[in-house]
Amino acid sequence: MEGMIYIVGMGPGNRGMMTGDAYEAVSAADVIVGYTVYTELMAKIVPGKKFVSTPMRHEIERCRRCFELAKEGRRVALICSGDAGVYGLAAPMLEMAADYPDIDIAVVPGITAANSGAAVLGAPLCHDYCVISLSDLLTPWPVIERRLRAAVLGDFAIAIYNPSSHKRKDYLQRACTILINAGAKPDRACGYVKNIGREGTLKTCCTLEELWNADVNMFTTVFVGNSQTRVIDGRLVTPRGYVIHTRESYE
Amino acid sequence: MEGMIYIVGMGPGNRGMMTGDAYEAVSAADVIVGYTVYTELMAKIVPGKKFVSTPMRHEIERCRRCFELAKEGRRVALICSGDAGVYGLAAPMLEMAADYPDIDIAVVPGITAANSGAAVLGAPLCHDYCVISLSDLLTPWPVIERRLRAAVLGDFAIAIYNPSSHKRKDYLQRACTILINAGAKPDRACGYVKNIGREGTLKTCCTLEELWNADVNMFTTVFVGNSQTRVIDGRLVTPRGYVIHTRESYE
Repeated sequence: MEGMIYIVGMGPGNRGMMTGDAYEAVSAADVIVGYTVYTELMAKIVPGKKFVSTPMRHEIERCRRCFELAKEGRRVALICSGDAGVYGLAAPMLEMAADYPDIDIAVVPGITAANSGAAVLGAPLCHDYCVISLSDLLTPWPVIERRLRAAVLGDFAIAIYNPSSHKRKDYLQRACTILINAGAKPDRACGYVKNIGREGTLKTCCTLEELWNADVNMFTTVFVGNSQTRVIDGRLVTPRGYVIHTRESYE
Repeated sequence: MEGMIYIVGMGPGNRGMMTGDAYEAVSAADVIVGYTVYTELMAKIVPGKKFVSTPMRHEIERCRRCFELAKEGRRVALICSGDAGVYGLAAPMLEMAADYPDIDIAVVPGITAANSGAAVLGAPLCHDYCVISLSDLLTPWPVIERRLRAAVLGDFAIAIYNPSSHKRKDYLQRACTILINAGAKPDRACGYVKNIGREGTLKTCCTLEELWNADVNMFTTVFVGNSQTRVIDGRLVTPRGYVIHTRESYE
Protein backbone atom coordinates (compact mmCIF):
# COMPACT_ATOMS: atom_id res chain seq x y z
CA MET A 1 0.00 0.00 0.00
CA GLU A 2 1.42 3.34 -1.05
CA GLY A 3 0.91 6.52 0.95
CA MET A 4 0.51 10.13 0.07
CA ILE A 5 2.69 13.20 0.54
CA TYR A 6 1.49 16.74 1.19
CA ILE A 7 4.17 19.39 0.68
CA VAL A 8 2.89 22.05 3.02
CA GLY A 9 3.76 25.74 3.18
CA MET A 10 3.22 26.62 6.84
CA GLY A 11 3.64 30.39 6.48
CA PRO A 12 5.79 32.22 9.03
CA GLY A 13 5.12 29.72 11.81
CA ASN A 14 1.89 30.42 13.71
CA ARG A 15 -1.63 29.02 13.29
CA GLY A 16 -3.09 32.39 12.34
CA MET A 17 -0.92 32.67 9.24
CA MET A 18 -1.54 29.08 8.09
CA THR A 19 -4.31 28.33 5.62
CA GLY A 20 -7.14 25.99 6.50
CA ASP A 21 -5.88 23.43 3.97
CA ALA A 22 -2.35 23.52 5.42
CA TYR A 23 -3.72 22.99 8.92
CA GLU A 24 -5.88 20.08 7.71
CA ALA A 25 -2.93 18.47 5.93
CA VAL A 26 -0.68 18.47 9.00
CA SER A 27 -3.56 17.50 11.32
CA ALA A 28 -4.43 14.47 9.18
CA ALA A 29 -0.80 13.38 8.63
CA ASP A 30 0.61 10.19 10.16
CA VAL A 31 4.01 11.82 10.26
CA ILE A 32 5.26 15.39 9.84
CA VAL A 33 8.71 15.85 8.33
CA GLY A 34 10.74 19.05 8.41
CA TYR A 35 13.78 21.04 9.44
CA THR A 36 14.11 21.05 13.23
CA VAL A 37 13.23 24.76 13.69
CA TYR A 38 9.92 24.25 11.86
CA THR A 39 8.93 20.91 13.37
CA GLU A 40 9.37 22.57 16.78
CA LEU A 41 7.10 25.46 15.78
CA MET A 42 4.59 23.03 14.28
CA ALA A 43 4.57 20.86 17.43
CA LYS A 44 2.98 23.84 19.22
CA ILE A 45 0.28 24.13 16.54
CA VAL A 46 -0.59 20.40 16.26
CA PRO A 47 0.65 18.83 19.52
CA GLY A 48 0.91 15.07 19.90
CA LYS A 49 1.78 14.29 16.28
CA LYS A 50 4.72 12.15 15.17
CA PHE A 51 7.57 14.34 13.89
CA VAL A 52 10.71 13.49 11.94
CA SER A 53 13.28 16.27 11.73
CA THR A 54 16.50 16.52 9.81
CA PRO A 55 19.09 19.28 10.26
CA MET A 56 19.65 22.24 7.94
CA ARG A 57 21.45 21.49 4.65
CA HIS A 58 20.15 17.91 4.69
CA GLU A 59 17.28 18.81 2.38
CA ILE A 60 17.67 15.97 -0.10
CA GLU A 61 17.90 13.40 2.69
CA ARG A 62 14.70 14.94 4.12
CA CYS A 63 12.92 14.62 0.76
CA ARG A 64 14.03 11.00 0.31
CA ARG A 65 12.80 10.22 3.83
CA CYS A 66 9.30 11.43 2.90
CA PHE A 67 9.11 9.01 -0.01
CA GLU A 68 10.34 6.12 2.14
CA LEU A 69 7.71 6.85 4.79
CA ALA A 70 5.02 7.13 2.11
CA LYS A 71 6.11 3.82 0.55
CA GLU A 72 5.35 2.20 3.90
CA GLY A 73 1.78 3.42 3.49
CA ARG A 74 1.96 6.53 5.65
CA ARG A 75 0.30 9.85 5.04
CA VAL A 76 3.20 12.30 5.16
CA ALA A 77 3.23 16.09 5.56
CA LEU A 78 6.54 17.70 4.59
CA ILE A 79 6.51 21.18 6.10
CA CYS A 80 8.44 24.20 4.82
CA SER A 81 8.37 27.73 6.22
CA GLY A 82 6.51 30.27 4.09
CA ASP A 83 5.50 28.65 0.81
CA ALA A 84 7.07 25.28 -0.08
CA GLY A 85 7.06 26.44 -3.72
CA VAL A 86 9.25 29.50 -3.03
CA TYR A 87 12.88 28.44 -2.37
CA GLY A 88 11.32 25.42 -0.64
CA LEU A 89 11.30 21.68 -1.14
CA ALA A 90 8.41 21.50 -3.64
CA ALA A 91 10.83 21.52 -6.61
CA PRO A 92 13.29 18.83 -5.42
CA MET A 93 10.34 16.68 -4.27
CA LEU A 94 8.69 16.86 -7.68
CA GLU A 95 12.03 16.09 -9.37
CA MET A 96 12.56 13.10 -7.09
CA ALA A 97 8.98 11.91 -7.62
CA ALA A 98 10.11 10.34 -10.91
CA ASP A 99 11.57 7.54 -8.75
CA TYR A 100 8.23 6.89 -7.00
CA PRO A 101 5.50 6.83 -9.66
CA ASP A 102 2.93 5.24 -7.33
CA ILE A 103 3.04 7.91 -4.65
CA ASP A 104 0.61 10.80 -4.88
CA ILE A 105 1.89 14.29 -4.11
CA ALA A 106 -0.02 17.50 -3.46
CA VAL A 107 1.48 20.94 -2.95
CA VAL A 108 -0.38 23.06 -0.36
CA PRO A 109 0.55 26.74 -0.74
CA GLY A 110 1.44 29.01 2.17
CA ILE A 111 2.12 32.69 2.80
CA THR A 112 5.68 33.38 1.71
CA ALA A 113 7.82 36.01 3.50
CA ALA A 114 7.49 38.44 0.57
CA ASN A 115 3.76 38.71 1.24
CA SER A 116 3.71 38.35 5.03
CA GLY A 117 6.56 40.84 5.38
CA ALA A 118 4.91 43.26 2.94
CA ALA A 119 1.76 43.26 5.09
CA VAL A 120 3.83 44.16 8.18
CA LEU A 121 5.49 47.08 6.38
CA GLY A 122 2.40 48.32 4.53
CA ALA A 123 2.05 47.57 0.82
CA PRO A 124 5.49 47.58 -0.82
CA LEU A 125 4.57 44.89 -3.39
CA CYS A 126 1.30 46.43 -4.61
CA HIS A 127 2.67 46.70 -8.15
CA ASP A 128 4.89 44.38 -10.26
CA TYR A 129 7.62 42.82 -8.10
CA CYS A 130 10.56 40.43 -8.01
CA VAL A 131 11.60 37.95 -5.37
CA ILE A 132 15.37 37.39 -5.19
CA SER A 133 17.44 35.30 -2.76
CA LEU A 134 20.99 36.40 -1.92
CA SER A 135 22.00 32.88 -0.92
CA ASP A 136 24.77 31.63 -3.19
CA LEU A 137 24.81 28.12 -1.73
CA LEU A 138 22.94 26.78 -4.78
CA THR A 139 23.10 29.77 -7.16
CA PRO A 140 26.30 31.31 -8.55
CA TRP A 141 26.74 34.93 -7.38
CA PRO A 142 26.93 36.30 -10.96
CA VAL A 143 23.37 35.00 -11.56
CA ILE A 144 22.17 36.81 -8.42
CA GLU A 145 23.97 39.98 -9.49
CA ARG A 146 22.40 39.79 -12.96
CA ARG A 147 18.93 39.45 -11.41
CA LEU A 148 19.44 42.43 -9.10
CA ARG A 149 20.48 44.54 -12.09
CA ALA A 150 17.51 43.35 -14.16
CA ALA A 151 15.15 44.20 -11.28
CA VAL A 152 16.34 47.82 -11.36
CA LEU A 153 16.18 47.92 -15.15
CA GLY A 154 12.54 46.81 -14.99
CA ASP A 155 11.80 49.18 -12.08
CA PHE A 156 10.36 46.33 -10.02
CA ALA A 157 9.74 46.47 -6.30
CA ILE A 158 12.00 43.76 -4.83
CA ALA A 159 11.64 41.33 -1.93
CA ILE A 160 15.07 40.03 -0.90
CA TYR A 161 15.35 36.68 0.91
CA ASN A 162 18.43 35.42 2.78
CA PRO A 163 20.09 38.86 3.02
CA SER A 164 22.72 37.55 5.42
CA SER A 165 24.05 34.48 7.19
CA HIS A 166 27.05 33.58 9.32
CA LYS A 167 29.22 33.14 6.24
CA ARG A 168 27.64 35.89 4.15
CA LYS A 169 27.74 38.95 6.39
CA ASP A 170 28.17 41.57 3.67
CA TYR A 171 25.84 40.23 0.95
CA LEU A 172 23.14 42.83 1.53
CA GLN A 173 25.76 45.58 1.26
CA ARG A 174 26.98 44.06 -1.98
CA ALA A 175 23.39 43.94 -3.24
CA CYS A 176 22.79 47.61 -2.30
CA THR A 177 25.89 48.62 -4.22
CA ILE A 178 24.77 46.63 -7.28
CA LEU A 179 21.28 48.19 -7.17
CA ILE A 180 22.70 51.73 -6.91
CA ASN A 181 25.22 51.08 -9.68
CA ALA A 182 22.35 49.79 -11.82
CA GLY A 183 20.55 53.11 -11.42
CA ALA A 184 18.45 52.89 -8.25
CA LYS A 185 18.69 56.23 -6.41
CA PRO A 186 20.27 56.10 -2.95
CA ASP A 187 17.09 57.66 -1.48
CA ARG A 188 14.87 54.84 -2.88
CA ALA A 189 12.29 53.87 -0.20
CA CYS A 190 13.12 50.51 1.41
CA GLY A 191 12.31 48.50 4.50
CA TYR A 192 12.95 45.26 6.32
CA VAL A 193 11.16 42.97 8.72
CA LYS A 194 12.66 40.60 11.27
CA ASN A 195 10.92 37.54 12.72
CA ILE A 196 7.72 37.91 10.68
CA GLY A 197 4.74 36.37 12.48
CA ARG A 198 6.91 35.33 15.43
CA GLU A 199 7.82 36.84 18.76
CA GLY A 200 9.86 40.01 18.38
CA THR A 201 8.60 41.09 14.95
CA LEU A 202 10.54 44.25 14.10
CA LYS A 203 9.93 46.50 11.10
CA THR A 204 12.02 49.36 9.79
CA CYS A 205 11.57 51.76 6.89
CA CYS A 206 14.70 53.37 5.46
CA THR A 207 16.39 54.52 2.27
CA LEU A 208 18.45 52.27 0.02
CA GLU A 209 21.56 54.07 1.27
CA GLU A 210 20.57 53.38 4.90
CA LEU A 211 19.84 49.74 4.03
CA TRP A 212 23.57 49.36 3.55
CA ASN A 213 24.01 49.65 7.32
CA ALA A 214 20.92 47.65 8.30
CA ASP A 215 21.33 45.00 10.95
CA VAL A 216 19.88 41.95 9.18
CA ASN A 217 20.11 38.21 9.75
CA MET A 218 18.77 35.02 8.20
CA PHE A 219 15.32 35.73 9.68
CA THR A 220 15.06 39.12 7.95
CA THR A 221 13.21 39.86 4.72
CA VAL A 222 14.28 43.04 2.92
CA PHE A 223 12.13 45.18 0.62
CA VAL A 224 13.44 47.63 -1.97
CA GLY A 225 10.74 49.85 -3.44
CA ASN A 226 10.36 50.73 -7.10
CA SER A 227 10.91 54.33 -8.23
CA GLN A 228 7.37 55.28 -7.09
CA THR A 229 7.46 53.72 -3.62
CA ARG A 230 7.01 56.12 -0.69
CA VAL A 231 6.97 56.03 3.08
CA ILE A 232 3.54 57.28 4.22
CA ASP A 233 3.00 57.62 7.98
CA GLY A 234 5.69 55.07 8.70
CA ARG A 235 4.41 52.57 6.13
CA LEU A 236 6.14 51.48 2.93
CA VAL A 237 3.69 51.87 0.02
CA THR A 238 4.13 51.15 -3.69
CA PRO A 239 1.19 52.88 -5.40
CA ARG A 240 -1.00 50.79 -7.67
CA GLY A 241 -1.63 53.82 -9.86
CA TYR A 242 -4.99 55.12 -8.64
CA VAL A 243 -5.45 58.89 -8.38
CA ILE A 244 -6.29 59.56 -4.76
CA HIS A 245 -7.15 63.03 -3.54
CA THR A 246 -6.14 63.02 0.08
CA ARG A 247 -6.28 66.15 2.20
CA GLU A 248 -2.49 66.15 2.00
CA SER A 249 -2.53 66.47 -1.79
CA TYR A 250 -4.99 69.40 -1.68
CA GLU A 251 -2.83 71.44 0.68
CA MET B 1 -15.58 56.59 18.65
CA GLU B 2 -13.37 55.55 15.75
CA GLY B 3 -13.38 52.05 14.31
CA MET B 4 -10.77 49.83 12.80
CA ILE B 5 -10.14 48.54 9.30
CA TYR B 6 -8.68 45.17 8.37
CA ILE B 7 -7.53 44.93 4.75
CA VAL B 8 -7.91 41.21 4.20
CA GLY B 9 -6.42 39.00 1.50
CA MET B 10 -8.95 36.20 1.16
CA GLY B 11 -6.89 33.98 -1.17
CA PRO B 12 -8.61 32.41 -4.20
CA GLY B 13 -12.03 32.34 -2.55
CA ASN B 14 -12.58 29.28 -0.38
CA ARG B 15 -12.15 28.73 3.37
CA GLY B 16 -9.35 26.19 2.88
CA MET B 17 -7.09 28.70 1.18
CA MET B 18 -7.74 31.49 3.72
CA THR B 19 -5.44 31.96 6.68
CA GLY B 20 -6.71 31.70 10.24
CA ASP B 21 -6.12 35.44 10.76
CA ALA B 22 -8.07 36.35 7.62
CA TYR B 23 -10.99 34.18 8.73
CA GLU B 24 -10.91 35.75 12.20
CA ALA B 25 -10.85 39.27 10.75
CA VAL B 26 -13.94 38.74 8.57
CA SER B 27 -15.73 36.77 11.29
CA ALA B 28 -15.23 39.58 13.83
CA ALA B 29 -16.11 42.40 11.42
CA ASP B 30 -19.27 44.50 11.79
CA VAL B 31 -19.30 44.98 8.04
CA ILE B 32 -17.45 43.35 5.13
CA VAL B 33 -16.72 45.54 2.12
CA GLY B 34 -15.66 44.28 -1.31
CA TYR B 35 -16.22 43.87 -5.01
CA THR B 36 -19.48 42.01 -5.65
CA VAL B 37 -17.86 38.78 -6.91
CA TYR B 38 -15.83 38.46 -3.69
CA THR B 39 -18.53 39.49 -1.22
CA GLU B 40 -20.69 36.74 -2.78
CA LEU B 41 -17.91 34.16 -2.31
CA MET B 42 -17.31 35.40 1.24
CA ALA B 43 -21.01 35.21 2.11
CA LYS B 44 -20.71 31.43 1.69
CA ILE B 45 -17.72 31.32 4.07
CA VAL B 46 -19.12 33.60 6.80
CA PRO B 47 -22.89 33.57 6.29
CA GLY B 48 -25.14 36.10 8.04
CA LYS B 49 -22.66 38.98 8.07
CA LYS B 50 -23.42 42.49 6.83
CA PHE B 51 -21.90 43.06 3.37
CA VAL B 52 -21.36 46.24 1.36
CA SER B 53 -20.39 45.69 -2.27
CA THR B 54 -19.34 48.13 -4.94
CA PRO B 55 -18.92 47.28 -8.62
CA MET B 56 -15.61 46.71 -10.45
CA ARG B 57 -13.61 49.86 -11.27
CA HIS B 58 -15.13 51.68 -8.29
CA GLU B 59 -12.11 50.88 -6.14
CA ILE B 60 -11.50 54.35 -4.72
CA GLU B 61 -15.18 54.75 -3.81
CA ARG B 62 -14.93 51.35 -2.08
CA CYS B 63 -11.87 52.46 -0.09
CA ARG B 64 -13.50 55.75 0.93
CA ARG B 65 -16.58 53.82 2.06
CA CYS B 66 -14.45 51.76 4.44
CA PHE B 67 -13.15 54.87 6.17
CA GLU B 68 -16.65 56.34 6.47
CA LEU B 69 -17.95 53.13 8.06
CA ALA B 70 -14.98 53.03 10.41
CA LYS B 71 -15.52 56.67 11.39
CA GLU B 72 -18.97 55.66 12.60
CA GLY B 73 -17.26 53.28 15.00
CA ARG B 74 -17.56 50.07 12.99
CA ARG B 75 -15.04 47.29 12.68
CA VAL B 76 -14.58 46.97 8.92
CA ALA B 77 -13.06 44.14 6.85
CA LEU B 78 -12.17 45.18 3.30
CA ILE B 79 -11.73 41.96 1.34
CA CYS B 80 -9.59 41.50 -1.77
CA SER B 81 -9.02 38.30 -3.72
CA GLY B 82 -5.57 36.75 -3.32
CA ASP B 83 -3.37 39.11 -1.30
CA ALA B 84 -4.62 42.67 -0.75
CA GLY B 85 -0.99 43.80 -1.01
CA VAL B 86 -0.53 42.41 -4.56
CA TYR B 87 -2.41 44.59 -7.11
CA GLY B 88 -5.02 44.98 -4.36
CA LEU B 89 -6.44 47.81 -2.29
CA ALA B 90 -3.79 47.85 0.44
CA ALA B 91 -1.80 50.59 -1.32
CA PRO B 92 -4.68 53.02 -2.08
CA MET B 93 -6.05 52.44 1.45
CA LEU B 94 -2.73 53.33 3.05
CA GLU B 95 -2.41 56.39 0.80
CA MET B 96 -5.94 57.50 1.73
CA ALA B 97 -5.28 56.85 5.42
CA ALA B 98 -3.55 60.24 5.60
CA ASP B 99 -7.09 61.72 5.65
CA TYR B 100 -8.13 59.62 8.65
CA PRO B 101 -5.31 59.73 11.21
CA ASP B 102 -7.49 58.33 14.02
CA ILE B 103 -8.46 55.12 12.28
CA ASP B 104 -6.30 52.04 12.82
CA ILE B 105 -5.51 49.87 9.82
CA ALA B 106 -4.05 46.36 9.66
CA VAL B 107 -3.11 44.44 6.51
CA VAL B 108 -3.84 40.70 6.73
CA PRO B 109 -1.92 38.82 4.02
CA GLY B 110 -3.45 36.14 1.80
CA ILE B 111 -2.31 33.61 -0.77
CA THR B 112 -1.85 35.46 -4.06
CA ALA B 113 -2.52 33.75 -7.40
CA ALA B 114 1.23 33.48 -8.15
CA ASN B 115 1.60 31.09 -5.22
CA SER B 116 -1.77 29.30 -5.33
CA GLY B 117 -1.46 28.81 -9.09
CA ALA B 118 2.15 27.62 -8.75
CA ALA B 119 1.02 24.91 -6.31
CA VAL B 120 -1.58 23.68 -8.81
CA LEU B 121 1.02 23.46 -11.59
CA GLY B 122 3.88 22.04 -9.48
CA ALA B 123 6.71 24.36 -8.43
CA PRO B 124 7.34 26.92 -11.20
CA LEU B 125 8.38 29.69 -8.75
CA CYS B 126 10.88 27.68 -6.71
CA HIS B 127 13.69 30.04 -7.68
CA ASP B 128 13.84 33.84 -8.13
CA TYR B 129 10.66 35.11 -9.78
CA CYS B 130 8.76 38.16 -11.01
CA VAL B 131 5.09 38.98 -10.81
CA ILE B 132 3.84 41.14 -13.70
CA SER B 133 0.31 42.31 -14.55
CA LEU B 134 -0.62 42.84 -18.21
CA SER B 135 -3.43 45.25 -17.29
CA ASP B 136 -2.75 48.68 -18.74
CA LEU B 137 -5.71 50.34 -17.05
CA LEU B 138 -3.38 51.96 -14.48
CA THR B 139 0.04 51.23 -15.98
CA PRO B 140 1.28 52.48 -19.37
CA TRP B 141 1.99 49.58 -21.75
CA PRO B 142 5.65 50.63 -22.33
CA VAL B 143 6.27 50.10 -18.58
CA ILE B 144 4.77 46.60 -18.81
CA GLU B 145 6.85 45.87 -21.92
CA ARG B 146 10.02 47.07 -20.18
CA ARG B 147 9.31 44.76 -17.22
CA LEU B 148 8.72 41.72 -19.45
CA ARG B 149 12.06 42.39 -21.17
CA ALA B 150 13.86 42.83 -17.85
CA ALA B 151 12.37 39.56 -16.58
CA VAL B 152 13.96 37.69 -19.49
CA LEU B 153 17.24 39.55 -19.06
CA GLY B 154 17.35 38.44 -15.41
CA ASP B 155 16.23 34.89 -16.33
CA PHE B 156 13.42 35.07 -13.78
CA ALA B 157 10.47 32.70 -13.68
CA ILE B 158 7.41 34.89 -14.27
CA ALA B 159 3.85 34.85 -12.95
CA ILE B 160 1.60 36.89 -15.24
CA TYR B 161 -1.64 38.40 -13.88
CA ASN B 162 -4.52 39.77 -15.97
CA PRO B 163 -3.39 38.09 -19.22
CA SER B 164 -6.63 39.00 -20.95
CA SER B 165 -9.93 40.84 -20.60
CA HIS B 166 -12.82 41.83 -22.87
CA LYS B 167 -10.91 44.82 -24.15
CA ARG B 168 -7.45 43.24 -24.10
CA LYS B 169 -7.85 39.99 -26.01
CA ASP B 170 -4.36 39.86 -27.51
CA TYR B 171 -2.23 41.08 -24.60
CA LEU B 172 -0.84 37.64 -23.76
CA GLN B 173 0.17 37.18 -27.40
CA ARG B 174 1.89 40.55 -27.33
CA ALA B 175 3.66 39.52 -24.12
CA CYS B 176 4.82 36.20 -25.64
CA THR B 177 6.26 38.07 -28.62
CA ILE B 178 8.10 40.51 -26.33
CA LEU B 179 9.53 37.65 -24.24
CA ILE B 180 10.74 35.76 -27.33
CA ASN B 181 12.22 38.92 -28.87
CA ALA B 182 14.01 39.53 -25.55
CA GLY B 183 15.70 36.13 -25.84
CA ALA B 184 13.38 33.57 -24.25
CA LYS B 185 13.43 30.43 -26.39
CA PRO B 186 10.09 29.45 -27.98
CA ASP B 187 10.33 26.04 -26.25
CA ARG B 188 10.59 27.62 -22.77
CA ALA B 189 8.43 25.61 -20.32
CA CYS B 190 5.23 27.48 -19.38
CA GLY B 191 1.81 26.82 -17.92
CA TYR B 192 -1.45 28.42 -16.91
CA VAL B 193 -4.21 27.83 -14.40
CA LYS B 194 -7.86 28.85 -14.65
CA ASN B 195 -10.21 29.33 -11.68
CA ILE B 196 -7.61 28.58 -9.00
CA GLY B 197 -9.23 27.21 -5.84
CA ARG B 198 -12.71 27.42 -7.37
CA GLU B 199 -14.97 25.05 -9.26
CA GLY B 200 -13.53 24.08 -12.63
CA THR B 201 -9.84 24.55 -11.82
CA LEU B 202 -7.99 23.79 -15.05
CA LYS B 203 -4.22 23.51 -15.46
CA THR B 204 -2.15 23.28 -18.61
CA CYS B 205 1.59 22.93 -19.24
CA CYS B 206 2.89 24.13 -22.60
CA THR B 207 5.78 25.86 -24.34
CA LEU B 208 6.12 29.63 -24.69
CA GLU B 209 5.25 29.24 -28.36
CA GLU B 210 2.08 27.32 -27.50
CA LEU B 211 1.18 29.92 -24.88
CA TRP B 212 0.59 32.30 -27.77
CA ASN B 213 -2.55 30.30 -28.66
CA ALA B 214 -3.67 29.63 -25.07
CA ASP B 215 -7.31 30.25 -24.26
CA VAL B 216 -7.00 32.58 -21.24
CA ASN B 217 -9.38 34.97 -19.52
CA MET B 218 -9.36 37.33 -16.53
CA PHE B 219 -9.51 34.36 -14.14
CA THR B 220 -6.32 32.81 -15.58
CA THR B 221 -2.83 33.11 -14.11
CA VAL B 222 0.02 32.40 -16.51
CA PHE B 223 3.49 31.08 -15.64
CA VAL B 224 6.60 31.41 -17.80
CA GLY B 225 9.51 29.33 -16.57
CA ASN B 226 13.12 30.47 -16.39
CA SER B 227 15.72 28.86 -18.67
CA GLN B 228 15.99 25.86 -16.28
CA THR B 229 12.27 25.13 -15.85
CA ARG B 230 11.10 21.72 -17.02
CA VAL B 231 7.87 19.76 -17.29
CA ILE B 232 8.29 16.60 -15.17
CA ASP B 233 5.41 14.09 -15.24
CA GLY B 234 2.97 16.80 -16.22
CA ARG B 235 4.17 19.24 -13.56
CA LEU B 236 5.95 22.55 -14.16
CA VAL B 237 9.13 22.63 -12.03
CA THR B 238 11.80 25.31 -11.69
CA PRO B 239 14.74 23.58 -9.96
CA ARG B 240 16.10 25.16 -6.81
CA GLY B 241 19.59 23.93 -7.69
CA TYR B 242 19.96 20.75 -5.65
CA VAL B 243 21.72 17.81 -7.27
CA ILE B 244 19.21 14.98 -7.26
CA HIS B 245 20.11 11.51 -8.40
CA THR B 246 16.84 10.10 -9.65
CA ARG B 247 16.64 6.72 -11.31
CA GLU B 248 16.23 8.68 -14.53
CA SER B 249 19.61 10.34 -14.08
CA TYR B 250 21.34 7.02 -13.44
CA GLU B 251 19.96 5.43 -16.60
